[in-house]
Formats: sequence, structure tokens, C-alpha cells
Amino acid sequence: MDAIPAKGGESLSKDMESLSPFGTARSTAQGKPLSNDELDKINRYFHASMYLCLGMLYLKNNPLLEEPLKKDHIKARLLGHWGSDAGQSFTYIHFNRLIKKYDLDAFFVSGPGHGAPAVISNSYLEGVYSEVYPNMSQDKEGMQRFFKQFSFPGGIGSHATPETPGSIHEGGELGYSISHAYGAVYDNPNLIALTMVGDGEAETGPLATSWHSNKFLNPIDDGAVLPVLHLNGYKINNPTLLARITHEELEAMFVGYGYKPYFVEGSDLPSMHQAMAATLEECVVSIKNIWKEARESGKAIRPRWPMIVLRSPKGWTAPRDVDGHHLEGFWRAHQIPLTKVLTDPEQLKLLENWMRSYKPEELFTKDGKLIPELAELAPTGNARMSANPVTNGGQLRKPLKLKDFRDFAIKVNKNGAELAPSMNIFAEWLTTIVANNTDNFRIFGPDETESNKLGAVYKAGPKVWLGEYLDYDKDGGNLAPAGRVMEMLSEHTVEGWLEGYLLSGRHGMLNSYEPFIHIIDSMVNQHAKWLEKCYEVEWRTPVASLNILLTSTVWRQDHNGFTHQDPGFLDVVANKSPEIVRIYLPPDANCLLSVMDHCFRSENYVNVIVADKQNHLQFLDIEDAVAHCTKGAGIWKWASNDEGAEPDLVMASAGDVSTQEALAATALLREHLPELKIRFVNVVDLFRLMPNGYHPHGMTATEYASLFTDNRPVVFNFHSYPWLVHRMTYKRVGQHLMHVRGYKEKGNIDTPLELAIRNGTDRYSLAILAIDNLKDTLGNKGSSVREMLLDTRTRSASYAFETGEDPKAFVDWKWPF
Amino acid sequence: MDAIPAKGGESLSKDMESLSPFGTARSTAQGKPLSNDELDKINRYFHASMYLCLGMLYLKNNPLLEEPLKKDHIKARLLGHWGSDAGQSFTYIHFNRLIKKYDLDAFFVSGPGHGAPAVISNSYLEGVYSEVYPNMSQDKEGMQRFFKQFSFPGGIGSHATPETPGSIHEGGELGYSISHAYGAVYDNPNLIALTMVGDGEAETGPLATSWHSNKFLNPIDDGAVLPVLHLNGYKINNPTLLARITHEELEAMFVGYGYKPYFVEGSDLPSMHQAMAATLEECVVSIKNIWKEARESGKAIRPRWPMIVLRSPKGWTAPRDVDGHHLEGFWRAHQIPLTKVLTDPEQLKLLENWMRSYKPEELFTKDGKLIPELAELAPTGNARMSANPVTNGGQLRKPLKLKDFRDFAIKVNKNGAELAPSMNIFAEWLTTIVANNTDNFRIFGPDETESNKLGAVYKAGPKVWLGEYLDYDKDGGNLAPAGRVMEMLSEHTVEGWLEGYLLSGRHGMLNSYEPFIHIIDSMVNQHAKWLEKCYEVEWRTPVASLNILLTSTVWRQDHNGFTHQDPGFLDVVANKSPEIVRIYLPPDANCLLSVMDHCFRSENYVNVIVADKQNHLQFLDIEDAVAHCTKGAGIWKWASNDEGAEPDLVMASAGDVSTQEALAATALLREHLPELKIRFVNVVDLFRLMPNGYHPHGMTATEYASLFTDNRPVVFNFHSYPWLVHRMTYKRVGQHLMHVRGYKEKGNIDTPLELAIRNGTDRYSLAILAIDNLKDTLGNKGSSVREMLLDTRTRSASYAFETGEDPKAFVDWKWPF
Repeated sequence: MDAIPAKGGESLSKDMESLSPFGTARSTAQGKPLSNDELDKINRYFHASMYLCLGMLYLKNNPLLEEPLKKDHIKARLLGHWGSDAGQSFTYIHFNRLIKKYDLDAFFVSGPGHGAPAVISNSYLEGVYSEVYPNMSQDKEGMQRFFKQFSFPGGIGSHATPETPGSIHEGGELGYSISHAYGAVYDNPNLIALTMVGDGEAETGPLATSWHSNKFLNPIDDGAVLPVLHLNGYKINNPTLLARITHEELEAMFVGYGYKPYFVEGSDLPSMHQAMAATLEECVVSIKNIWKEARESGKAIRPRWPMIVLRSPKGWTAPRDVDGHHLEGFWRAHQIPLTKVLTDPEQLKLLENWMRSYKPEELFTKDGKLIPELAELAPTGNARMSANPVTNGGQLRKPLKLKDFRDFAIKVNKNGAELAPSMNIFAEWLTTIVANNTDNFRIFGPDETESNKLGAVYKAGPKVWLGEYLDYDKDGGNLAPAGRVMEMLSEHTVEGWLEGYLLSGRHGMLNSYEPFIHIIDSMVNQHAKWLEKCYEVEWRTPVASLNILLTSTVWRQDHNGFTHQDPGFLDVVANKSPEIVRIYLPPDANCLLSVMDHCFRSENYVNVIVADKQNHLQFLDIEDAVAHCTKGAGIWKWASNDEGAEPDLVMASAGDVSTQEALAATALLREHLPELKIRFVNVVDLFRLMPNGYHPHGMTATEYASLFTDNRPVVFNFHSYPWLVHRMTYKRVGQHLMHVRGYKEKGNIDTPLELAIRNGTDRYSLAILAIDNLKDTLGNKGSSVREMLLDTRTRSASYAFETGEDPKAFVDWKWPF
Repeated sequence: MDAIPAKGGESLSKDMESLSPFGTARSTAQGKPLSNDELDKINRYFHASMYLCLGMLYLKNNPLLEEPLKKDHIKARLLGHWGSDAGQSFTYIHFNRLIKKYDLDAFFVSGPGHGAPAVISNSYLEGVYSEVYPNMSQDKEGMQRFFKQFSFPGGIGSHATPETPGSIHEGGELGYSISHAYGAVYDNPNLIALTMVGDGEAETGPLATSWHSNKFLNPIDDGAVLPVLHLNGYKINNPTLLARITHEELEAMFVGYGYKPYFVEGSDLPSMHQAMAATLEECVVSIKNIWKEARESGKAIRPRWPMIVLRSPKGWTAPRDVDGHHLEGFWRAHQIPLTKVLTDPEQLKLLENWMRSYKPEELFTKDGKLIPELAELAPTGNARMSANPVTNGGQLRKPLKLKDFRDFAIKVNKNGAELAPSMNIFAEWLTTIVANNTDNFRIFGPDETESNKLGAVYKAGPKVWLGEYLDYDKDGGNLAPAGRVMEMLSEHTVEGWLEGYLLSGRHGMLNSYEPFIHIIDSMVNQHAKWLEKCYEVEWRTPVASLNILLTSTVWRQDHNGFTHQDPGFLDVVANKSPEIVRIYLPPDANCLLSVMDHCFRSENYVNVIVADKQNHLQFLDIEDAVAHCTKGAGIWKWASNDEGAEPDLVMASAGDVSTQEALAATALLREHLPELKIRFVNVVDLFRLMPNGYHPHGMTATEYASLFTDNRPVVFNFHSYPWLVHRMTYKRVGQHLMHVRGYKEKGNIDTPLELAIRNGTDRYSLAILAIDNLKDTLGNKGSSVREMLLDTRTRSASYAFETGEDPKAFVDWKWPF
């Protein structure tokens, strides 16, 4: 093999042959565990899967090739991917043997892009597909429908979408196979997630760091992930990095990640079957031994978990060359392998010969059913990977045991009179959830649980840590090999874990600094799409909602500055399906409790809850809070003086800091312009603002007008970027009277008041805004008040600038009425 | 050291001492290159830096401790971080020696969170800070101001913000130090980026995969990155993963990543100084040798680049214990190390003693200037890392050499009559840009350049690849050790490279599938914030804009389905500062050329350009395209029949597929309801929709009304989620007549027409929508047309469902007038 590229590139590798995916198997594990008969059967089963994969890509008719293949049998548009199918199916089938031999509880995660044919063909072969979709029966008619639906309008896609039995990982966006797999095996002590990782996928950041998940896996209480890195060699149009580093580097990398890597490399099927059989078996035995040792000794050490590197040709078992170009073992095998079958009779013949080379007539009965001697290779019942109940986790889900959150409420004798830290109050209740749900609830976060004032939960469950310990970790480290809080400084990884944990039937919560949640925008998008699709898949039982608690919010980034100011995650979430997404902005601790209780009980949603972690004014006692949160938006009578009449002005807010400032503005106006009738409205459930036809929580026009009126100016102080409120209310009568203030990318190292002034969300600016919109009501009476407010604002800002602190009058403000 | 944690956790490590950050230096490189005098001076220089760091955290007065420290001298609010300052400054200072000795061209990248005091103190010590900010002079008054401004309202933050001389990497959001550093050294053959990587940061996905950037670094044409992984040991409240795996694993990991790791571990200053001096020197010599060998031989092999693991205590040189808890070497040293100095006189005294232990009186003159024998340790002029011109890249930027894009235009004889692939046309011009700007323009993308139909550029510059080669890579692989296209399947890494490349004074473009650009939402947010801040920093010269070309768009995900449908990146971008962000939706090839020409000439923007890669109708000849794009939005007279009069209806569009459908709807209406006066408006520059006070591109009310009227229904077919148009136009007169259609999370495996129908963005639905909003104009005349359209829509959808293809009448549609 010529290893010297053009223009002076040269190889580091001393043994280029070691990078070839072709040839007789080369493997770490030795031995030939398969008898000739077993090998033959497994090979034929593999052929059956490959035949089905090609059928899915090409055929709309003639599924068993009973007649010569004609253009009419081919789908009009050829869509789908062949590249990683063989390697994935090969791995799947070999694991079936071990599931039967060792009575394993296992499921399959398909990480490589577009590998759905591999898993779907196996689900069909083991009978699950037909059980789930009776019209895709195991006969000729069923097979024809099974082929036609693939990548066909109204049919199924080329990832392991929610329609795929046995899937909890769609894989449209790459990078999350490992974190999803670990998420599913935490607290599932006998479960193995056989996880194929694409070598394209492996280049992504989220995947690259997720290998470290093994430092959070407890061999006593958790199951195991068996990763199979599929060195398929190519992405869409490029070689993959990990297939093109030296063998030494590749091995070192996985030792570095804390695994024991096993290699299985080559293309020759008989030897590859033996190598894979031996390797998977050694890995399974190793996992079982690790479990046994840990469980018998009670010592949760971190072992070197096994992992496999499978180097096989991309498009394995395709023709090596077509039209003078490599197909098998090259990037040209990525998508549809033969692209001209509709126009080139020779290619059509080539396809037919290729499909016939698998000998379908020897694999399936005349009626199209897999022959019994092959069918019996698959496990039965729930032992079939595509039937593992964990992959339809809603079925297994038990409701959380929740103590009454009312018992943890803060006493609020007077509205807005005392400061308290909402997070700490919530944390006390959260601690009981951790304590009472020790095998199906975890808290996830990127090193911020303590900083987010939720550290109380460590009383009930410490942070999981299977890295090395130093003696002084005992001093408040809250680390233990078995725990309930999962922290790694990778938003991607903790989100992936949580998704896997939820989809396998458990409950959880992610807590994060608000500004950095954008890091996982795309993951949350994909999870929302998964849930949305699940509504269309009848057999999918609802799972617990994805609860994302955002704190350390934009308005209190006192020493982090501009980079830490971004409340725009809400805009990303609001674009997702209204069936799925919910946004809550509880203004105080009791509302936070009420909202979180609702979220923990809910199903199939993405709940985003925004609440700051600092000391804040407390507004509602618990019964008022529950009533208010149940309505989602309402008038705060105690802060209003319109007494049921038409107000002159509606002052509104959503968010804790925003509510305080809006209330303070209301107080200023009421103090200095007592003749004004002001109605105070607070919004907890943001989607209440939308018209009822647009979101299930949306208010009717009448409801909306009963809060905001349809003809009075509204000053709305909003937590996030102001346009989100406008986009939700643009259809409302009176929308032109809605004046929203929120964050507008104006920040610096600021005191809270300074930042608010910069963005016009402080009490003075809000009151001035109100006066400016009440000119007709106030006439000249407003001018002197306006001037006074302007002056106070200026003086407050200079005070902060000079002293580094906000004025006492601002810091110590309470609701004065 | 007791390595056994509670509850059965046990260590994998045979040598726990190796994980301790304390003690005499342990290092890979041996030797004592420093004379006693040199060591003493370097140590004092280091002390000066540490003194300044503490001053920044605490003091607003008494900067030289001329009088006993009093509460009055302390800032009222203590903000800032101590944790990583010492390790970073230590590394910085030791590199100064080598810059002088070897005449190096180098700059510093500060990856760990909140390490600004380290770099700012060094910038101050080497005089750059005072040159850039004359009021922060090198004297007592300057030092007092220098201290006070830090983490103080109106001052500077605790990251290496744009205000920091020598910084191109702010680091507020963690994970991008390595990719930024590599971006800066590509095409800078003599530049070394000394890059500190935080061990917290190292846990992020983006950082974990960015180590692989070395497979894209050409030792002939590019400079070098010298990464220093700072095993500081702790994050905010947790140990770091990489500090708690075995030494063997850590070493293997970096061998796996393709580096030669050098370890420097310990806390004892004299031996650590010698170890760091020896190690950095060995690394520098190694880099110079690699360069020399490659450049003399002309062979661009991938060497094992050196990297350093610096294990030192978090908060190094702080008191080890305070109040019965470890401070130095523990997470308690993360932020302000002594938190009670304002309330506890003993802590105040402790701080004073600590500061005095650095002996400021021996480091600074009475007037507050660093004494000459220490000052001369720093390099001079632009050799000072904080003065390296590359870190104010705008200064170095040369405009791109651009051929006239008009010469690459497609001939459009009749509007909307022919299909052509816009990307391929653009690619021909792009190829000349690559060819004519061989040292300051690169194209970046995650394995999609070919798929995005931009592969023509390989004629001018292949893909950079310093991984291993196989012989058949020659068959269309387009790979070479020296090239102009940078592809790795990590959106994070390629975006990070591009940012580094731009900030160091060059030009570039990212191309990506539209759906997966959300992966880098947060990176683009941070870059936009960086640029926004730069406007306030006078000495920052504008850099080339960040150009993001999104293709493979939502409307043509024919075989990728739901996961690949997300046009919401525009919402994220639209939240950023209007000074920075621009969004363009060119409807055809000639508009794309015109828009890209503008973007490549622009400065300091984030330009997002959305255009699909399939064959699409071509609407405008090049002169019309230029005129249209210059206006940003305009009436297409050839598609309108209102002839300057008041129209009955405005049909509007933004985006290529959306424009085709809106035009087809217009044609249907004109054919079947010829009495209707329809005005067709197309929007290229999305921010034109906003009011002029809200965005520099915003239209005045008069301009807006001259296009959209203020009293006629508007049917707006939009590329992305419809609410973005509403949020931009909610203030416009007549906004209640604006009916926007766009993507609404309704997708599946769909033909283009099916997907459009599902979302109401197809020609039939748009025409029906128009009729429904023209009831008063049309009376009953519209009903039969409506019925016909509904019927056509239904039949088209069933046709697609049955055949897998859209009807010919849809696929072959041309503008009929």
C-alpha cells in the first residue's frame, strides 16, 4: 500500500497495513469460539440482514427477487445509506449469540449516521418489527411494505427514529451515542448497552469527551456500556481521523480514556466472524467479572471497562469497484451505493447479482419468512434487543415519590417584604426527592449544583465520582462512588446522560447557568423532536419530562460580565412543537416549588424553568403561589389599585428580578402619582401569552383582555430578550400598546441596578416609560415626577460606578403598601 | 496520602503520590537551565505578578501597601478569581525567557476560566497595558487605578476580554482555547501560540476533540501551538477528571491525541522554576527542529508536537490552610481566596501578610514602577506577548483580492425560467478567491463542502490532511498536507479555527448544513459579544467578518427528515447586537454572488447567509441582482401586476425555496383571478424589516409602506420559523395584515412539496391564504378558485405519497408570464 501522499505528506505509521480495513481478521482476542455450523448460520443470518438493507434502499416490489429485477421494482427516488449498515448489523448479530448464551439484558445504540437499515433489518428478523407493526409482517407482502416504507414519503427515515423498536437514540445529529448509553445504564445494574460509535461521530466534541462517562459508572449499582468504535474509515467525503492515526496512537487514546481496547480488524468474513465472536465474548465475560467482583466485595472501584475497535470496510460486502472507482471500503459507499440503477441496465443487473449473492432463496421461505434454523439464532421475547422494555422506558416508569411541596414553603406574611433565596428553599424539598427515589431520580449539572445553591441535596445523595481520590476530598467534597448527583464540566455529556436516563424510564433534572445552556441548544432541539415524533408512535409510552432549571441568570452576573449574559435559550425552545415545550418563570420560592412539582409530575415535555439563585423578594404565600401558578398568569391584586375597574396602566412582569423591578416601578408611580389606576400582572407560564389556538396553554382573547385589557398601555418587564413577548402577542388586540423591556445585549461588569438601567429594565426606567405612555392621562402632572425619577436613576448609577455597590435604597427595597 | 474514599471507592493508581500537586518538582525534561541569579529574578518577577493579581482582587487604594492595610483600602464588593492565576502567570513568565533567547514570535491564550489577572498583570509588568491605557501608568496612581478597575462596575472582567492587550480568546465560555490557538497559527509559519488549557475546560466536548487539530497543522506553512494543560486540580466545586485519572492514563491520552507530553508537577518554587524552564526550552527547541526539518526537506509530515502537563496546586502560593480548611490546592481557592477581609480583621491581616510576603517594596520602586533588573526580563516591543500584532489582527489584515463576481454570474434571460444550482455557480467564483489569496483565506466546514456543492474549490486548494494516507485517497480524495479547505466533523472545532483565523487578521468562511449550525449557537453568541465589545475598545482594529453560509436547508431535507429540519439559527443570531449581526437570504445564484461579495468585504460582522444547494429557479440577471441586494428588499415588477398603483395584495418572500413557492402562488392567482392586483416583494437582507431605529439596516416607516403598504394584506412566505418576521415587524403599521408562513416543526420523510404543504408554505396553500384574506375584494369569485387549489393540493400530496415523487407540474414549474 502506497502511503505517501502528494506534496510531501508522509506517514507516521511504521506499519501502514495495520490501517487497512481489508484482509483476514486481526484481533486482540484470539480463539475460534464458533463451530463451523454456527459460523455458517451466523454468516447467513448476516446475509439476511444485508439483503434486507439493500431491499430497503432500493425495492418497492419483488421483495424476494422471485422474478428478474426490473426498473419497475425500484423506488423512483433512491434515498438512504449503505455505508455503516454491515458493520453495525455484524455487531448486533454477534451479540445475539451472547445474549442467549449468558442470558443478558441488553439493547443496542446505533451511533453512526444513517445506520437505520442495520437495526431495522435486525428488528424485522427477530420478529419485533412485525409485532409492533402488524402490516410489516414476516411474509412477502409484509416485506414488500417493509422495503417500500423506508426513506419513502410518509414512511420512516434513515436514522433510528422513534418509530424504530429498540431505539432510544435517533442519531440524526451525531455525537450522543455514548452519553445516551451511559444514561440508560445508570441504576440499571444488569443492563448492557451495546453501543456502536461512528468514527465520524467520534470526531464531534460531545462524543470525544463522553468517553469519560466511565468515571461516573459504578460497577455495583449501574450496568455497563460496551462501546464498539466502528472504524468505517470514511465520512461523507473524507477519511475519518481515528481511522488515520497510527495504531499505537489509537490504542493509547483508549487506554487514556480508561478503557481496555480490543481490536477486530479486517474484511474476510469467516475470520472476522470468529474474531468478533471471541472478542465480544471476552468483553461480556470481563463485564460480568467486573460486576461480580465489585458486588461481592462491595468495593466500587473503577475498572478498565472493555471497548472494541471494529475496523471494517465502509460499505462492507458491496462490490469493491464500480465504474472504475472503489465502492466498498471508500466514501463512495456512504449513501446509495449504486446510484444509476434506474437509468443504467448494467447497474441494475449489478444490483440484482449483488442481492442474489446473499442467496435470499436459502434465507427466507417461499412466503418470505426467515427460515427457522436462522430465526432461532435470535433471542426470544424481551431478550431481543429491539424488544428490550428499557427502550420504551415509559412502560417501566414509576411516578416519583414526592412529598407535599407545601410543607417546604416559605412563610410569606406580607407580599414583597422579605428576601429569601428561592433555590435554597427549593433545595430542601429536592433533597427529599433524592432521598425517596434512590434508584430512579438523579440530578445532572456541569459543576454548578453547589454554586446554584442546590448543595443541600448532597445530604441525600453525594456526587458520583469514580475518579481517583485525594485525602482532603473529605472536606466538603461530597464525592462518593455511589451518589445521586452527576457533575462533569460538559453540558453535552450531562444532558446526554439525562436524556438516556429519562428515555429508559426514569426521572431527573438538569441545572445549569442560564448563559451556557445555549451549548446544548441543538441537543434539546433534537430531544424535543424525538418527543414530538413519539406522539405519532402509538406503542411509545410517555416518559418523564426533560426538566431544565436555569439559574445564575442574566440579571445577576455581577462579576462575570457580558459573556455570561444570554437569556435567549427561551427563543430556541419556543420554536419547538407547542405539544412539547413549556417555559416557566416563577417569580419567587413558593412559585418555584409549585412549578417544579408540576414539572416532576409531567410527561413528554421539555420544561424550562428560569429562576435566579440570589436572595430575592418573596411575594406569595404558598396557597396564593399554587393558585397563581395553576392559572399561569394573573393579576396581583395586592399590588394593584385599579380595584376591578379599567386601569390606566397595566404593569406586567415575567421573571424574578424583572418582577421586583416592575413592582418597584409600580410603587414609585403609586407613591408619586396616586391618582393613577395601575393593574399589576405577573406571568409564570410564558406560553399563556400565546393565542389559545397556537399553544395548548394559550389564553383566549377574552382571558387575555381580562388581564392586559385591549386598550390600555402595558409596560411589560421581561426576563429575556423583549422580542419573545412581542412574537407571542403580535396577534393580540392592543398589541401596539404593549411596551416590553428586557435584555438587549447591553452589558458589562455591572451592579444589578446598573445592568438594569443599561437595558431599561430598572424601576426608574419602567416608571418613566409608563409616564411617557400616559401623557394623555397625566397631562403635565407626569413631567415633574419623570424628572425626579430620571434624576434618581442618574444618581443611583453614579453611586454604583463610584462605590462598586448599588445604593442602599435599591438593595433594601420592599413593597411599601 | 489516603487514597481510599468512603463507601468502597478505591484507586486504580498504584502511585497516588503522582497525583499530588505538591512537593518538589517532578518533570519529564531534566536539567537546571537557570543560574541562581536568573532563578531569583524570575521568581521575583513571578512574585510581582502574584502581587498584582491580589491587588486586582482586593485593593482600591494603598496599592503599594505603603501603610498598613485597612478595610478602607479594600473594594466594597469582592469579585474575581484567584484559582488559576499563579499557574498561568508562571508559564507566561517562563516563556518570556525563551522569547528573548530564541527571538520567538509568540502570544498567549488563556483557556482556564477567569484567569485574567494572570495575563493582565503580565501585560502591565511588560509595559503594554500602560501604553494602551495611559491612565493605567506604571506608577503608584496608575497601579491604584489598575487595581480598582478590575471586576469593578464600568471596569474590566475576569476573563481575557477584548480590553485585554494580547488576547484573542476571552474564555468566558470554556472549551475553545485550543481551536482558537490553532486558527491563529495556520498560515503564520513562525508563530507560536502558548496555550493554557484549563483542566475544567478540558472536560468540555469542544476542547476534548480540538486536540486533534494537530492533524491539520502543516509544519511547513503553519506555526505551532504549544498547549499547556493546567492540572489545577479543581473546578468550582469538584476535582477535575484529568487530575484524577492515573498518570499512565493521562500520558496515554496525549500520546493518543498525537502529542509528546511533558510533565511538570509540584509546588516547590525553586525546583518548579528549573523544571518549567527546562521543559519549555525543550519544547521550543523541538518545535524549531520540526519546522526546520520539514522546511528543509519540503516534507510535511505530522510530527509528535510537544505539549505540557503542568500539575500545580489550585491557588498556588496562597496560604495552605485558612479557618481549618485547605485553601491552596483546593477548590476553595477558585474565586476570592479570603472572603471575610471586610468583616474579619484577622483575615485582613492574613491578606496583608500574604501580599507582603511577595515583598512589593523589593519589586517596585517607591513610585510603583517595576525595578529595572526585573523589567528587563520581559521581551521588548512587539515581542512582548501582550503586544503581538497578531492579537490585534485587524492591523495585519489585507483586503481579499476579489475578482469581479459579475464575471461569474449566470445569464438570466427570462425571470424564473431556468433551474440552476446556486452553490455550484458561487463555487466557481469562490475558487478564484481561494486561488488568489493563498495565505490569508481558508474555507472551513464539517465534512460537507463537497455535499454542499462547493467542491470546485479543491481545484484551487485541496483539503488539509496530515493524518495517514491510503493509496486510494488519490481517487477524488482532494486531500493534501497543504491545502485551503479545513474539514473535521466537529462544528465546534472548525468554528473555533475560523474565529482564531479571523481574529489574527485573515479571512474565511464556514459552510454547514443549516440544521446542525445550532451546535455552535453558543460559540457564535460569544464571538458576536466579542465583536460588540471591540467597538468600545479604541485600539482594536476591525477584523474580517465571520461569514456563515448555511445550506442543505430545511425545505430540501428529502431523505434526512425531521432531525434535519431546523432553520432557527436565525433567531439566535437576531438576538445579538444590531451593530454586529446581518442575515441574508439570497433567492438565487446571482443574488448569492452579490451578497457574498459584500460579506467578504465587510468588517466586524457576523454574516449569516442562507441558500440551498439544489437546483433552483434563477430569477434575476446580475445587474438586477446587484441592485436588488443593494436595496436589500424590493418589489419585483416583473412578477407584479399592480403597476405602481395600490395593490390588492402583497405577496412577499425571503429565501430561495420560499420565493419560488410565493411566485408560483402569485402566478396561480394571476392566472385564475386576473383582476387581482398583486405586488411581489422579495427580502434578501432580513434586517430591512426592522424599524430603522432598531437596526442599522432597518427601513423607515415610509420605505416599509412603499413596499408592503399599510393597509393591504401581505402573504409572506418565509424560509425560517414564521415568528421571526412577526417579531421584526410587530411595530409596523398594518402588521395585523401580515400573514407569515414558515416552518413550524411539521416534518417527516417528505418530498419538497409534501413538506411545504404540511407547513402551509406551498403555492396552493399560499394562494388559498391570499384568497381567504381578500374576501372583501373577491366576494364569491374566489370560492371556486379556492376549491380548485385545494383539490390540486390534495391530489399533489397523494401523488407524492404514492409514487415517492412530486408531480411533474410542480417539479417543472417556471414563471409563466
